[in-house]
Parts: sequence; structure tokens; C-alpha cells
Amino acid sequence: MSSTIREHILSCGGRIIHHKGFTATGLQEILQAAEVPKGSFYFYFKSKEEFGLALVDYYQAWFAEQVRPILKDETRPPLDRLAGFFLWFQHYFEQEGFIKGCPIGNLTQELGDINPAFREKLKASLDGLISFIARLLQEAKDQGHLSARLETEATARFIISAWQGSLIRMKAVAGPEPLDTFQTMTFEVLLA
Amino acid sequence: MSSTIREHILSCGGRIIHHKGFTATGLQEILQAAEVPKGSFYFYFKSKEEFGLALVDYYQAWFAEQVRPILKDETRPPLDRLAGFFLWFQHYFEQEGFIKGCPIGNLTQELGDINPAFREKLKASLDGLISFIARLLQEAKDQGHLSARLETEATARFIISAWQGSLIRMKAVAGPEPLDTFQTMTFEVLLA
Repeated sequence: MSSTIREHILSCGGRIIHHKGFTATGLQEILQAAEVPKGSFYFYFKSKEEFGLALVDYYQAWFAEQVRPILKDETRPPLDRLAGFFLWFQHYFEQEGFIKGCPIGNLTQELGDINPAFREKLKASLDGLISFIARLLQEAKDQGHLSARLETEATARFIISAWQGSLIRMKAVAGPEPLDTFQTMTFEVLLA
Repeated sequence: MSSTIREHILSCGGRIIHHKGFTATGLQEILQAAEVPKGSFYFYFKSKEEFGLALVDYYQAWFAEQVRPILKDETRPPLDRLAGFFLWFQHYFEQEGFIKGCPIGNLTQELGDINPAFREKLKASLDGLISFIARLLQEAKDQGHLSARLETEATARFIISAWQGSLIRMKAVAGPEPLDTFQTMTFEVLLA
């Protein structure tokens, strides 16, 4: 039960922070959205900062759960699973109306160079994503589906940068072009 | 003289916003940094929003001035000029201590999907950068220095996304890796 209320506060507060940003979202807004009193919030989180840090774990776990079936589908070749992973997000943002962007990327942009606790946690999250992509690229390489000249770790880092930047451009374009371009350039040019 | 005070407020206020973000920076902080009274601020800017929009022009003009000598150097081949352009920024961020990121990208992330006036202005700024890169890529193509299979517009868009995302990762890594990776992957893999 208690973990349910905690998750409920994370889900409701996270929805506001995901769109407006961490600093721009007041504690009062989080309490109102979750319909809980301040005491409830402080029972689960020592501070707004602790709430924000917990949000990183929350989003990471939530997104991982959504894309798990795609990534676990061993019947698809590794690059096809990777493309499916990004396509899932492309549909997600299409449904959202091309707003909000990546909660991890947003927090990194907003707080990465200001708050060391956030920086460390967000770096771990991005690094985890990079390692996972590097492993898929290595698998593709081992199966002869990827050029041997591509260094998997650097390529994975570049792909995650390109993805994060595409999500920024998505907010300016307010349409599908940036994520479409990402998909085409990544899978039909860079990894082809 | 009046344009000097206006620029002074933009420069001082911009320095804070560039690091802390637009919403997180109060008008009082801008006034204190610029050492001007509120009346002075409102003489030049109708609102904090108008100030933020003027900041986009200010940064665009300032950066364009810094990199103009590199871009105008017709003795260098187009891809070499493009690499020099990003290298200039790489040194800039190294001197800054790998913080702050791109003021245009930051504002797009923070306000692009919230404030239509910002969205439009930031889109124009990013599109200008994309057109400029696409022209250099076309020049390189015409001179036979770039593969004919690369679509210049899409490639330019992808490069700007990758650049913006590299600047986000830079804040998490707090070191040179993301911009180094960008440079290597862009010029030794993607455009090679």
C-alpha cells in the first residue's frame, strides 16, 4: 500500500515535471496533482531533491518495462530490436503530441551542471542506456550485420547524443521530422 | 549609448540564464547582475519574456561573430571549415568547464513545447544553423569530398541533433568525452 502511494506521488508529480521542468514545478503543484497532504509527501521523500532523484529511477523503470518485450524478442536481429526500441519512443511522442521530451535528458539539461547528486544519477542512467546499445551493436557485429570499422562504444554514445538532441529539436519543430530523421540517419546511414 | 545598456543587460542576465535556466532566474537577479534599476530594464524590454526572446538574437549574433573567421576562410575545404566551427565550440566549453551547454538548445528544451513565441524563434535559429551546415555539405559534395548518397538536408539536421545531445551529455559527464565523440563520429565516420 505504502509503495502504491509513493508511486502515485511520483507518477502525478512526474507528469508535471516532465513538461514544465523540475525548478519550475512547485511542491504545492505536486501535492495538488497527487491529492495528498504535505505530510504524506515528506513521509516518502525527505525533500523535493530526493523526490526528483527518485523520479529518475521511476522513469527508468517505467520505460524499461514498456520496451522489454521488444528487446527480449530474440527472434529479431539485434539492429532490428534497436530500431524497434526507438520506434516505440517515436510512437510514444507522437501520441503525446511531440512535447515533453526525455525526462532523463530534460533533467540532465536543467540540473546536470548545477546539482552533483542529479549529475551522478543521470550520468548512470545515460551510461546504462549507452552500454545496452553498445551490447546490441556488438551482437550485430558478431553476426556480421554491422561494419567492423564501427567502434561500438563510441557509436552507442553518438546515437544517444543524437537521440537526446532529436528530442530537443522535436520541441522546436512540434512535429515528427526530428525523430524520423533520427531513425533514417541512424539505421539507413550510420549503421547501414 | 542606449544600445550599450541594452546589450549590457542582455549580457549580464544572459550569463545567469545560460547556466540556471530561464524560469529559474528571477528578474531581481538580472537587475542585480546588470546593476540597473527595474525601470531601466522595462525601458528596453516590455517583459521578461521579451528579454528572453531578445536573448536568442543576442546569443546567435555573438556566436556568429566568434566563428565568422573560420567560416569565411575560403582557403579551407568546406568540411574542414565545418569541423573548425565545432572545434571552436569544443574549446569554448572546455574553457567554461563543460557546463552551461548551448543557450539555444537549453531554451528549446525548457520552453519549446510550452511557449509558442519561444518555439517559433528557437526553431528559426536552429533551422538557420541547419541550412548553413547543409550548404557546406553541398559544397563538399560538389567538390567530391562527400559521398553522393548522403542527403545534405537530413544529414545537417542529424548533425545538429547530435550536437545538441552531445551538449546535454557533456553536463552529465562533466568532461570532454561527449564533444570528442561528436567530433570523431561526425567527421571520421558519418561524413568520411
